[in-house]
Amino acid sequence: MIKRFDELKKDVVSNFRGGKGELEMTHFLEVEKDEFKGKGRLYCKNVLKPGASIGFHEHVGDFETYVVLSGEGVVNDNGEEKPVRPGDVIITKNGEKHSLENTGTVDLEVMALILFD
Amino acid sequence: MIKRFDELKKDVVSNFRGGKGELEMTHFLEVEKDEFKGKGRLYCKNVLKPGASIGFHEHVGDFETYVVLSGEGVVNDNGEEKPVRPGDVIITKNGEKHSLENTGTVDLEVMALILFD
Repeated sequence: MIKRFDELKKDVVSNFRGGKGELEMTHFLEVEKDEFKGKGRLYCKNVLKPGASIGFHEHVGDFETYVVLSGEGVVNDNGEEKPVRPGDVIITKNGEKHSLENTGTVDLEVMALILFD
Repeated sequence: MIKRFDELKKDVVSNFRGGKGELEMTHFLEVEKDEFKGKGRLYCKNVLKPGASIGFHEHVGDFETYVVLSGEGVVNDNGEEKPVRPGDVIITKNGEKHSLENTGTVDLEVMALILFD
């Protein structure tokens, strides 16, 4: 089955998890359509404009993987701030916390995958 | 935990699944490190150079999601050939078959995710 880009579910969320600005999400798989087969709950591209962020939050019962596609940012990786750039992978395990902020001058694009633990 | 791009596991496979040329894989999560927590077995970026392909094959007991990042190609989607381009999502369910060929002039880059059904 092919889902064309313009058919994908898209969300724009303000102040996600207490962050700044807007988060644009483009969903590749949808829980509502049973496309995860019970293995997870989110697989999407996240776009943060310069200055926007996802606030610091904990993962409970699941874990998230970010893959940075483009742009520059800073991750709070379970209490420690670290710069990230394209190609970097951030894994936030069950019980850990993270945040992500676009500290650059262009869009920060990140693939986000949340699977259950 | 952050894995920097140059720390990621990379494979180059010739004639993958009977396809043409080489497939370059950059792995974001590794089964060997229990990073899927039993939910899947592959999460990587696949790169096919012009003319290279992944051969037609069946998924049994799992399902695969391709997200096209860049380039142009043709997918055989369970028996039907369809052109794909950046932003398209190809879902191959448990029991279905697919192939992927780079029919363009630049690298075809695709995120690949295999979860268990």
